[in-house]
Amino acid sequence: MFNAKVYISLKEGVADPQGATIKHALDSLGFKGVNEVKTGKYFQIELNIKNKREAEKQIEDMCKKILVNPVIEKYEYEIEEIKR
Amino acid sequence: MFNAKVYISLKEGVADPQGATIKHALDSLGFKGVNEVKTGKYFQIELNIKNKREAEKQIEDMCKKILVNPVIEKYEYEIEEIKR
Repeated sequence: MFNAKVYISLKEGVADPQGATIKHALDSLGFKGVNEVKTGKYFQIELNIKNKREAEKQIEDMCKKILVNPVIEKYEYEIEEIKR
Repeated sequence: MFNAKVYISLKEGVADPQGATIKHALDSLGFKGVNEVKTGKYFQIELNIKNKREAEKQIEDMCKKILVNPVIEKYEYEIEEIKR
């Protein structure tokens, strides 16, 4: 079994109004020195698969087919074995 | 300058209908062996602060005051120095 952590964020140059709103909220709460806030998504996917390479292939496929919009988003992931 | 990556996810036992929907979509696309999908949020925050301990304190404060709903969410973060 593997646990995959998938981090999805907006590509450089894509507008991030939610991030800008959070930055303004932080500024107005008195947090000094916040240059930029970028928002993204985070998925944890538990896979009942025995082979790490196969797990990586499935996660890569999931990102391409459903989790990520490649026009505006980029992704990274890490996969760790779950020992029970 | 520091870049903080903040990962927010739902606490154990909190319903995650978005995650369940993604799991069903993956099942119906033919992905075998997906046990569970958990959704979360991911923020990258660039801080114009010189001291790492101060940066950590600010991120911790931001999580508690605005980024995280402690009733249903938990958070982790990592902070790395940006060298320019």
